[in-house]
Amino acid sequence: MASLRDIVTSASINLLSAFGFLMAFAILRIQPFNDRVYFPRWYKKGTRSSPTRSGAYASKFVNLDCRTYLNFLNWMPAALRMPEPELIDHAGLDSVAYIRIYLLGLKIFVPLAVLSFMVLVPVNWIGDTLERAKDLNFSNIDKLSISNVPDGSKGFWAHIVMSYVFSFWTFYVLYSEYKVLATMRAEYLASETRRPDQFTVLVRNIPPDPDESVSEHVQHFFCVNHPDQYLTHQIVYNANKLASLVSKKSDLQNWYIYYQNKYERTSKRPLTKTGFMGLCGTKVDAIDHYTSQIQKLNEEEAVERERVKKDPDAIVPAAFVSFKSRWAAAVCAQTQLCRNPTLWLTEWAPEPRDVYWDNFAIPFFELTIRRLIIAVALFFLIFFFMIPIAFVQSLANIEGIQKVFPFLKPLIRIESVKSVIQGFLPGIVLKIFLAVLPQILMTMSKIEGYPSISALDRKSAAKYHMFILVNIFLGSVITGSALQQLKTFIDLPPTEIPKTIGVYIPMKANFFITYIMVDGWAGVAAEILRLVPLVLFHLKNTFLVKTEQDRYEAMEPGSIDFPVGEPRIQLYILLGLVYAPITPLLLPFIIIFLAFAYVVFRNQVINVYDPKYESAAAFWPDVHKRVVIGLFISQFLLLGLLSTKKIGRNYFALLPLPVLTIWFFMYCKGRFESAFVRFPLQEAMVKDTLERATEPQFNLKAYLKDAYMHPVFKSSDVEKSDFTFEEEESPLVATTRVATKLSPDVNSSSPVQSDA
Amino acid sequence: MASLRDIVTSASINLLSAFGFLMAFAILRIQPFNDRVYFPRWYKKGTRSSPTRSGAYASKFVNLDCRTYLNFLNWMPAALRMPEPELIDHAGLDSVAYIRIYLLGLKIFVPLAVLSFMVLVPVNWIGDTLERAKDLNFSNIDKLSISNVPDGSKGFWAHIVMSYVFSFWTFYVLYSEYKVLATMRAEYLASETRRPDQFTVLVRNIPPDPDESVSEHVQHFFCVNHPDQYLTHQIVYNANKLASLVSKKSDLQNWYIYYQNKYERTSKRPLTKTGFMGLCGTKVDAIDHYTSQIQKLNEEEAVERERVKKDPDAIVPAAFVSFKSRWAAAVCAQTQLCRNPTLWLTEWAPEPRDVYWDNFAIPFFELTIRRLIIAVALFFLIFFFMIPIAFVQSLANIEGIQKVFPFLKPLIRIESVKSVIQGFLPGIVLKIFLAVLPQILMTMSKIEGYPSISALDRKSAAKYHMFILVNIFLGSVITGSALQQLKTFIDLPPTEIPKTIGVYIPMKANFFITYIMVDGWAGVAAEILRLVPLVLFHLKNTFLVKTEQDRYEAMEPGSIDFPVGEPRIQLYILLGLVYAPITPLLLPFIIIFLAFAYVVFRNQVINVYDPKYESAAAFWPDVHKRVVIGLFISQFLLLGLLSTKKIGRNYFALLPLPVLTIWFFMYCKGRFESAFVRFPLQEAMVKDTLERATEPQFNLKAYLKDAYMHPVFKSSDVEKSDFTFEEEESPLVATTRVATKLSPDVNSSSPVQSDA
Repeated sequence: MASLRDIVTSASINLLSAFGFLMAFAILRIQPFNDRVYFPRWYKKGTRSSPTRSGAYASKFVNLDCRTYLNFLNWMPAALRMPEPELIDHAGLDSVAYIRIYLLGLKIFVPLAVLSFMVLVPVNWIGDTLERAKDLNFSNIDKLSISNVPDGSKGFWAHIVMSYVFSFWTFYVLYSEYKVLATMRAEYLASETRRPDQFTVLVRNIPPDPDESVSEHVQHFFCVNHPDQYLTHQIVYNANKLASLVSKKSDLQNWYIYYQNKYERTSKRPLTKTGFMGLCGTKVDAIDHYTSQIQKLNEEEAVERERVKKDPDAIVPAAFVSFKSRWAAAVCAQTQLCRNPTLWLTEWAPEPRDVYWDNFAIPFFELTIRRLIIAVALFFLIFFFMIPIAFVQSLANIEGIQKVFPFLKPLIRIESVKSVIQGFLPGIVLKIFLAVLPQILMTMSKIEGYPSISALDRKSAAKYHMFILVNIFLGSVITGSALQQLKTFIDLPPTEIPKTIGVYIPMKANFFITYIMVDGWAGVAAEILRLVPLVLFHLKNTFLVKTEQDRYEAMEPGSIDFPVGEPRIQLYILLGLVYAPITPLLLPFIIIFLAFAYVVFRNQVINVYDPKYESAAAFWPDVHKRVVIGLFISQFLLLGLLSTKKIGRNYFALLPLPVLTIWFFMYCKGRFESAFVRFPLQEAMVKDTLERATEPQFNLKAYLKDAYMHPVFKSSDVEKSDFTFEEEESPLVATTRVATKLSPDVNSSSPVQSDA
Repeated sequence: MASLRDIVTSASINLLSAFGFLMAFAILRIQPFNDRVYFPRWYKKGTRSSPTRSGAYASKFVNLDCRTYLNFLNWMPAALRMPEPELIDHAGLDSVAYIRIYLLGLKIFVPLAVLSFMVLVPVNWIGDTLERAKDLNFSNIDKLSISNVPDGSKGFWAHIVMSYVFSFWTFYVLYSEYKVLATMRAEYLASETRRPDQFTVLVRNIPPDPDESVSEHVQHFFCVNHPDQYLTHQIVYNANKLASLVSKKSDLQNWYIYYQNKYERTSKRPLTKTGFMGLCGTKVDAIDHYTSQIQKLNEEEAVERERVKKDPDAIVPAAFVSFKSRWAAAVCAQTQLCRNPTLWLTEWAPEPRDVYWDNFAIPFFELTIRRLIIAVALFFLIFFFMIPIAFVQSLANIEGIQKVFPFLKPLIRIESVKSVIQGFLPGIVLKIFLAVLPQILMTMSKIEGYPSISALDRKSAAKYHMFILVNIFLGSVITGSALQQLKTFIDLPPTEIPKTIGVYIPMKANFFITYIMVDGWAGVAAEILRLVPLVLFHLKNTFLVKTEQDRYEAMEPGSIDFPVGEPRIQLYILLGLVYAPITPLLLPFIIIFLAFAYVVFRNQVINVYDPKYESAAAFWPDVHKRVVIGLFISQFLLLGLLSTKKIGRNYFALLPLPVLTIWFFMYCKGRFESAFVRFPLQEAMVKDTLERATEPQFNLKAYLKDAYMHPVFKSSDVEKSDFTFEEEESPLVATTRVATKLSPDVNSSSPVQSDA
């Protein structure tokens, strides 16, 4: 077991490396030529157009002002300074709610840490089990943990009482935070300006009608059932093929521009190969090749565009139905329309940029089948993912590589290279799997058929959370693959499971402290450095960018990676809750992580990220649920641990805690969840009335007309206004250049000026 | 183990006793003086007013027509003859849905039995395990069960395949039955005539307003948020004390009438004692005593009535809000009104006679606390109920009785009496507990705060189902108290649980066959005989009845006892599903039970029961869920049993079945459940439009005015019409006679003529 000194050493190393990252960040961010990497949010908003300071030519690329290097940490107070309401205005409620998860963690753990160090650490220290057991290796850390309290000691009552205090404090923080978020969401929705999704309902599973087209059917149905309130509707086209053509063309155009630039610089016609990724095949003139390819795609696209417009089979049995008032939309979204509850399904329309267009055509029965299959697949993924990994690992050995890449043979024969390969390869296979895992989970969520990107994000996060819980948390506690664990748990009596895990928990404190430092601290520091976007931007800037518009599009601000980030925070919160009564020494490490991450993500949200969508913190119920799950697990593990400590039946005193936790969850669900799912009529009525009084002449129909058009049909010309209303008869207008992003913000932002 | 002959003997005895019951019923039901006991439904409907045949004076009491005695079973075809649509008209959809549960059982088990006897019985018979194991006692029954198949035999594949066939058949029947019921419900709701609950929504948790009364607050709120559709509302008074006074007075009046009648017959002033139940205390003149008591109560009641009318604290923060159309009511019941989701909670108003008036004033927080407490209490009731029973049993021994009732000493000293007491007392204590158990569960449901009697019934049924599952099914399989079982299950690994139970299952087939005959067959036969109502009616008729109205009220037709009856059927269905692949011989006994019960309950529904309320089969999702639970349990037990049969890992072939069952449940829930919970706007709109066209002048406000008045404020004079509209200022009119029943049917039915 590691001693206190080992931990201090490890902490210093990790602190230093994090500090190194921060230094690098501090230097890189004040260089003008990196301005678009570290402040893209302001460019996207149109409020920043050139590096902060103007001056000599050189200072346009490199910051020569020495004073700014001295205050290299001044981004931290700057990140904290922006008040929350302004932050909501600036970055949206989703981002604010996301950084509040870190705040939630801090609010839980700071008092928990103070209490633990005041009460539990002395109790643990007084116990002298480990001193007496001279034959065991023990460290100072273990002297501060529950392991140091002798079996049957009355000192365990301190842990039992503190477990109650911890749980009730967590309840209190969770409850008040849920309340704050519910209020923030309600206020946000109330303060929002007019948005198409406030008036619109997504209707799915429209039954086929032999006599009418989908469009007519929808119109007639709503004219009958919402006679006074129905305004208009937008049918959905199955434009998946068209969208893939457009995105393929955009790729080709990038290559075309790249070779064009190269030609202009070198005045030599560049060549390329026609085969896979330009690596093999016959050599041809690159510019001609791409021109002809783009030409071909243009023709294909035109044909497909015509087909989608004409073919009734290209119309999906779904529609966005808009109403004259928010009240009517709220009513329609929350009620059942048809006697058959699998037809005419209504739900709130997602924001236009949040729509996931591929999932509208799935009938109800197929949907349930898909969910069944994905549930089974997820189970196998979580518990059996090691089997294919091990298989690939067995293939990816020296012999396998020699067979596939014979030209590497001489290199591999070198002994040192060989041993490196043998040592690293299995690890790399696992790393690659873990890196693509979020993508796999996202694909699974897409198969499940959710109609909005925000819902897909939430569902992927739920899956990733389960994976982390089983394979990282349990997998690290009881060393062994999830499959072995599953076998163990199936063969163990239910009462033995918390015991088995509980006994291992105190031993793993050192491991998790290191994990928090390596994965948590370093991960956050790497997040702020943005190495990958930095490199990508400069590559693009060098090879592709010709106009300001190109440079604008070369910025990849990214956005909060909710499906990966949120489950990771949950892991740290789980660790904190589990170790708070067992090894309080772990808490400061978690607090440092949370505080550091809070500042970093606040900076990122202010300066970098460009949200893909705005769901008004719709994910908070999931966050709340997972913290409660963590609390529940921590209570059970403490129960299991104490039941091995020979304190008679006293540990039964902990039994009411899990019951109370379940009750707390149910109560909060009833109290707050509907604020995140439904839209109260009262609010809708207030906004409607207000709007009718202030803007009686507003043409809502024109405003909503093209709001829910597949992005592939929308023009992406920057100069063109977002709301140009074509004639009703031809909503599909072929354009030469087409946006590849869903964001309509690109179009409405002000033109950007030159800076390099 | 019992042999086949034992089973046949037992079956004959039980068949004979059931036959005896039927004979008694056949004779009693054709006696004119029992007419009101066996045909009250027709009296309640007002279509029957005197015994079927008129003739000589004697024949008014005793049936002298010999021919009717010969066709003593002719009630059976009569019960089956009424077609379903007519039955729905006659008795309501609830009753029809209830008897369809038996039909559902028959549809599942008849094909299952045929298949079992064709496939599994031969397979079992061929196996000769029991023949070879000469030292074991075995019977012919066991030769037909799975125990006869030798370990490791390929014959078990027959059981695995048949388990799939059985499950899929059950899925099919459950699915189609759910579909039929959903359609029946939709048609029933569509075909219904105008009813107050179609236009009315129950609003609970109205927040207090410092400036307005509850009534004003409701009116203003709905005028703002449903401006075009709000019609009127009815506030709810906390009249619990008044109701208890009224019911107490009604009791006293019964005694007064009893003594009055006695006086008229004997011309001697009857005496009574003033103490507990007239058993102790000073003797007084009974008529004077009750006259003064009633006088006192009248005064108290008048004071209380005034208080309720005047006191603002007597107004509960709940209201019945009525709308101008069904469409608006459907909208309001399904949407959230207020930003705070625990205020202004809306739900469909139950039918007026279905309202449970005591539960309207509970705030949301208290409600969740109550449900937590009841959940914990239910857990203890199910698993620890034997502890207080054992305690009472230990008290209820000879010595205890001698102490409490010293005057019984000489009797107890007789040896035979003593042994009888010692033998029976413990059993009697348990029987008493089981008899009052449904009442306890109903009280628990009432504490949980459901606002309608139908919801209370459904929740009590759910609790009773759990109790039966744990204490009767599992308790009989693994003999021992639930507490011991709980301990066993906690200490066993999850994989061992189905094994442990599975191994016991085949051994218990004989026990359950006997159980079906004694509890099932005899229970149904006793149901049709209606011994208790028979005796009660004749007692009342003799001592209390003076007028035709009294006699009308002395009929106690009762109604389907859903909270007790449904869980019992579920036990038989569970037994059938569990034993179908294991001991097919059990199936015929269940089929006989179901068929017999189907006929009997059809007769009861046609001739006897008077439904307390009509929920349009709202309980069907529960029924469906519990059959699915039974199927799930049966699959797990078979899995456990086969895993002990040394057939390698072949029993894993059964693993997909439980997963499919869960999926099937989810699918049906999504597909059908909302038909039982929500009311589609389409339907509402159709009915509204139709009604507006046919009855444009209908005064809906007047119609709805008093629909949701607490029954204690309603006049019960038979002559008075149900819809007399008092002035708005004084909705509370004191009356001298007050109905004790919720049913408004009493008032609207035609006056009844004399028959005795």
